[in-house]
Parts: sequence; structure tokens; C-alpha cells
Amino acid sequence: MVINGPANQIFRAPRRELYIPEGFLFSSVEAAIKGPGKRDLALIYSVVESSIWGMFTTNRVKAAPVRLCMRMIKTGRGQAIVVNSGNANACTGEQGMRDAAEMAELAAGLLKLRNNRVFVCSTGVIGRPMPMEKIRPKISELVGNIGTASIMDVAAAIMTTDTFQKIISRQIEIGGRRVTILGICKGAGMISPNMATMLCFIMTDADIERVAAKTALEIAVKKSFNRITVDGDMSTNDTTLLMANGMAGNDLIQLNSREFKEFSSMLSDITYELSRMIVRDGEGATKLIEVKIKNSKSGHDAEKGAFAVANSLLVKTAIYGNDANWGRIMSALGYSGIAIKEEKIDISFNGLKVVERGIGTGRDREADERLKAREISIVIDLHLGKETAKVLTCDLTEEYVRINAEYRT
Amino acid sequence: MVINGPANQIFRAPRRELYIPEGFLFSSVEAAIKGPGKRDLALIYSVVESSIWGMFTTNRVKAAPVRLCMRMIKTGRGQAIVVNSGNANACTGEQGMRDAAEMAELAAGLLKLRNNRVFVCSTGVIGRPMPMEKIRPKISELVGNIGTASIMDVAAAIMTTDTFQKIISRQIEIGGRRVTILGICKGAGMISPNMATMLCFIMTDADIERVAAKTALEIAVKKSFNRITVDGDMSTNDTTLLMANGMAGNDLIQLNSREFKEFSSMLSDITYELSRMIVRDGEGATKLIEVKIKNSKSGHDAEKGAFAVANSLLVKTAIYGNDANWGRIMSALGYSGIAIKEEKIDISFNGLKVVERGIGTGRDREADERLKAREISIVIDLHLGKETAKVLTCDLTEEYVRINAEYRT
Repeated sequence: MVINGPANQIFRAPRRELYIPEGFLFSSVEAAIKGPGKRDLALIYSVVESSIWGMFTTNRVKAAPVRLCMRMIKTGRGQAIVVNSGNANACTGEQGMRDAAEMAELAAGLLKLRNNRVFVCSTGVIGRPMPMEKIRPKISELVGNIGTASIMDVAAAIMTTDTFQKIISRQIEIGGRRVTILGICKGAGMISPNMATMLCFIMTDADIERVAAKTALEIAVKKSFNRITVDGDMSTNDTTLLMANGMAGNDLIQLNSREFKEFSSMLSDITYELSRMIVRDGEGATKLIEVKIKNSKSGHDAEKGAFAVANSLLVKTAIYGNDANWGRIMSALGYSGIAIKEEKIDISFNGLKVVERGIGTGRDREADERLKAREISIVIDLHLGKETAKVLTCDLTEEYVRINAEYRT
Repeated sequence: MVINGPANQIFRAPRRELYIPEGFLFSSVEAAIKGPGKRDLALIYSVVESSIWGMFTTNRVKAAPVRLCMRMIKTGRGQAIVVNSGNANACTGEQGMRDAAEMAELAAGLLKLRNNRVFVCSTGVIGRPMPMEKIRPKISELVGNIGTASIMDVAAAIMTTDTFQKIISRQIEIGGRRVTILGICKGAGMISPNMATMLCFIMTDADIERVAAKTALEIAVKKSFNRITVDGDMSTNDTTLLMANGMAGNDLIQLNSREFKEFSSMLSDITYELSRMIVRDGEGATKLIEVKIKNSKSGHDAEKGAFAVANSLLVKTAIYGNDANWGRIMSALGYSGIAIKEEKIDISFNGLKVVERGIGTGRDREADERLKAREISIVIDLHLGKETAKVLTCDLTEEYVRINAEYRT
């Protein structure tokens, strides 16, 4: 799926309709990590050194490449990202750290860059040694191929259980210059708050100061990747990298300027649309579910309550079964630990009120019909305060179980 | 399934092999709440007034009968329990409270008891009004039938998605008198820490002081019903009631006496075995999984970590698929928030070490074979301290999804 142009206008588009920021080139090869016949090693390359900012999993078990990137990101500079799928290089001890560093060094040597200008990301099975004997010889092919692959190829090469490529681009004028942002990501399972199980790479030709890029990325991730959940399992490898190479030639975007707001808003759009794609592609999912809590006592409560509902297996299976079983939502709100008054709660499914002041309105059959839609909106009004939070999730199906019972085999 | 005699000796036994405590009689009828042809209304009755103690869901959304019982339990006295399945009488507002009270009053009137000596429990769908027009006329039949039903019948009448009755009994000598404890429960889904989604009724003819009964019950529940999880969803109706009618004629059991320890240990056995039955009957489950965390820094960490692993959908689906995917366990430990050192962690499946000091031992194929067993033991040694916790759970299967997508329809 490729999303382009204004938000909410979703269509599949050929490559030429994507906006590619100036100075970014791509490459991808088959290294047989994921299995034969699939691209699984990719390179994102900027022709000039870029500013780079990143956000990483908060899981205490961090994959080797995550630990490497977290160290490198402190310089704030980078020019290339090497990424593989099929193996997460997580729980691989010191050897894993050496392998991640070697991937960066090999690429840096061929690209004539300093080692710490090449970032490395991995995704796939946890706990298996990196098949370096397969990767090593492919790095030169990867570098040799620069410019021959499309961003679609890169987006395909980073997929694991994903069923479609996740790409989006936007363009705006900033100070009379056309500025482009392009984002890709992968992720379909092991998705939970705080960066989801996903890799996300965002490229822009904007010239933006480091603190402004950091702030814009934090704002964007907070309301997108940190507000989605597929299965409540947080990954060891989550990484979002933002590279800005300045080739658009705009005046440097500074924090809190008008231009910053424009850029930040565009970036937030990008991550929001990517996060929707992840949930839509949730393993085995048939429906996209938005859980919104309104009029909560605190923002923290709103978010916590929305996640409790979004992570409830009973809610997710009921939605899958077109069953307006709102009692399961009431129950999830009750055990979430947030402030509620049962007798004040309203709940609606796709605009149809099924609970009013804590009691069923008797319109469940009608609501069952509305749940046959592919996009479900659950709105919960707590009538206790003024805070709101939205969380995206998907339904839970037999297919999720099948995919995850068979993933390694 | 009926468990009798010493712990771990599991067999199906006809009713006559169950020990029934003195003075307890049973009744059950069909009230067509659950659907035609199924008993769904039951009565547990002691011929003399009993001490009674209870523990209830910590969900903030509490079913009407739970709120009623919590009020009544303060008297510490009771003589009968009326229980129905098919409707939880939860999220039913003031009418629900009136309905629960009416069920108690009708039974109390016929039994010639004070209203607050009859406890009421409900389980089933949330958010539907109680079909009092069906229940009202059946209460007199229920009372009229006292003594005609077996405890097996009662255990069947409280089932919802359960596939077998959950009953256990034990006898010991206390102070030269034979004391019996009999426990039944229901629960298969919406099972999570803090009382699970379940009803549990424990009857004993012991004479035990109130504070001793309370203490013994709290000890027993803490390590049994509060240490199991099927789907992480905590119910609105969880209730455990312990009735002690004193008819064994033993000297009053007082707190911290030798007799107290004997009674408490027997009660803990009862609830532990019942909690195992619930997990074994977990909706769609094919395997019973025990997650044990050893050598954790704190007891709280041990419990929290064990629950994170036990609730991980990815761990549960991997076990279902006979896949020794220990990376998912490492990941769950990492996001649980407990203190860990990745490089110190050992993990074994049914005695086979798959992770040593944070790295795979390369014995996954062998471990896959061990996962074909029906009982899986996951032992995680954190090597950080001395605390231990065990949590019971089950695997997650397509059948869980099917059951819960279709529960109301």
C-alpha cells in the first residue's frame, strides 16, 4: 500500500507517483537470510552527509544493532542505513555486537565513509546468530547496486510477516523551496506501545536543526507508533530513524518557527499514516479498530484506558465476530485501573450508541451490523473530565494464531 | 474432572468418591437462562447457619451480585448461596441490584432465613437485564429440590464456556475429628490475576474462627487464583466464598495454631488444584503452561515477569505451535519492566536448557520435541536475587478466537 497526497486519500500508486527527496538512493539484494528468492538486505544512502535522529525500543532486551545505533546517534550525523530482515540479531551476545559493527564497517569501507556514519538495523527471528557468511559477500553487491532499486524494493526487503509495503510521501513548500518527506516502515506483529515492533526510516531533503528534528520526531512518534497495538508484545528491535540531508536548499528550519510547525505537522502525518498501515496489516487482522476515550480525568487515564480496551483479547475477538459485546469493554475499563464511574459511561460503535450511563441501550443487534465494516470506531465517553486519547488496534483472528504458531517453522 | 485424594493424583471419579462435608445439601434446576436443556440455577445450602468469608473481583466495574455479596459478607454469617449461569447481571444498573436482591429474598423467604443469609452469584454475558420472569418461578422449585442434586450437578449448573466440572475434596483429622473441605469452581476465559473470571464455592464442616478462615482463604487465593491467567482479561464477577458450618464438631480452629496450619494447607491445596483445572480448561487450550521465575531481585519482580511471559500472545502461540521460540520470552522479560541482566538469563523448557547467560544453547530442535507434551514448564533463572514466583497459563489457539468471536451468538 502506498499512501500519497493528502491524508485519508488511500490508493495504490506506481513508483513514479511517490515523491523521493533529493539525494537519496536505494539498493537491495537477496542474501538468503529470509529464505530463497526474497530480497532481505537493503541500503538507504544519501549522497551527502545528513543530520540523523532516532528513537528506539524501550525494551530492556535490546538487539545488537539497536545498541549500536543508540551509541552512534549521539554524533547526530549519518549517511547510510544498512538493514536486513530474517534475523533480528537480538539475544546474540557479544558476537551479535561484533556482527552488527562488521555490517556497518563493511558498508562504510566500500562507501568510503567513517564507520559511525553507517547505521545498521535488523528484524526477524530473535536468538539466532547472524548468518554473516551470507551477509558479508552481499554487502559489496549492495553498495555496487546503489541507485538501481526503488524505495518499493527497500520497503519489500525489510518485510517479515508484513503483507504489503508501507510507504508514504509528502511535499510542501517551506520558505519558497519544495521540501519532501518520504517514510517507509515494516511491522505487523509484536506491536505494542513505545515504538511497536517495527523499523521505520524517514528521509527528507529539508535542512533542519538537530533539536527541531528531534522535537518533531518525538511529537510525531508519540501520537502514532506509540499509540498502536496489535498484540501487546513490545519488540527488542524497534527503531525509527529520521535522516535530513538539507538538499532542498531551504533556510534552516528552527525550533518553534512557522516553518517548524509546517514540517512537524507533515512529519506527524507521515508517521500517523504509517502507523495505520501497520495496524491494518496486523497479523491476521480483518479490521482496523480505533479506540477513543473522551472526557477522561487525565490524559494518562485516557491513554491507559484506551490501551486496556485495545489490548483486550475478548474485545478484539468480539469485534472479529461482529458481536457488539460492549460488556467486555466495560470490564476492560474496570480492570484498567483508571478513574471511571460506571453509571456515567457512554459507548458507541461506529456512531451507534450501545451504552448510555453504564447501561445497554438495547441496540446491540443493530450494532452487530455496523461491526461488519472494515473500520471500527469505538468511542467511550467517561464524562469525568476533558482529556482524550486515541489508540489504533486490529481484531484478533484464528489467522493471528496460525501465523505466530508457525512463524519459525 | 474431579480431583480427590493427594495432590497431583488426578483422575475422574464418580460422585461417591467425593467427600461431602457434613450438613451441606444441593439443588439445581433449569431456568432457561443459558438456553434450553441445561441446568443454570443452583443452590448450595447448609442445614445450620455458617461462618462465611469471601473474596471478590478488584475490577472497578462490579456485577450487581458482587456488590450485594460484598455488603452482606460483613456480617460474616450465611446459610445459602443461589447462583446462576448464562447472565452475569453486570452493567445492569439499579435494576440489576434490585434483581440480585430479589433472588436472595425469594430464596430466603422459602428457606425461612433472613435475607442477608442468602448470597447470590451470577456468571455469563455482561450487560443484559436478568430474565427475572424466568428465574422468579424457578426459585421455589430450586428450594423444593434441596438434597436431590449432587455437587456434580451444581458444578455443571455454574459452567459457561467450561468443558468440564471443577470439583475437589479433601479430608483430614483435626483434633481427633474428621474435617472435610469441598470446593467447586467455574472459569475458562476472562481469566486474569486477581481472582480470575470465576466463581468458586468452598464448603467445610470445620469449626474455624472468622479471622482464621479469612487468613487461610487469603493465603490460598494468593498462590492459586491470583497466579493464573488465560487471556489477561479480569472479570466483573469473580467471587470466592468459603462457608464453614462447624458440623465436624472439632475444637474451634484458631489463628496460627497447629490445626490452623493443617486447615490452611488443605485449603491451599484445594484452591491450587481448582486453579489448575481452570487453566487446563482455558478456552481452546491444548496445553497447561507453568512459568516460573527464579532468583529474581524481588518477589514483585518475579511475579510481574512471570505474568508478562504468561500473558504474551507470542509466547502462547509459540508453545501451541511446538516452537521453542525463546526469543519471545526474552522480549517479554525485557518489556515487563522488571530488573534483568540479559547476559545472566537462563531459560529451560521441560528441563532442557535453551538459553544460557542470555544466549541460545542451540538445542531448539530438541526443545521443539519437548513442547509436544501437554504440560509445559518454563523455568527462567534471572540470577539476580533469591525470589521466586510461579504463574499458570495455557496456550493460545485458533479455538480461543473461535469461542470468543461467537460467545454471544
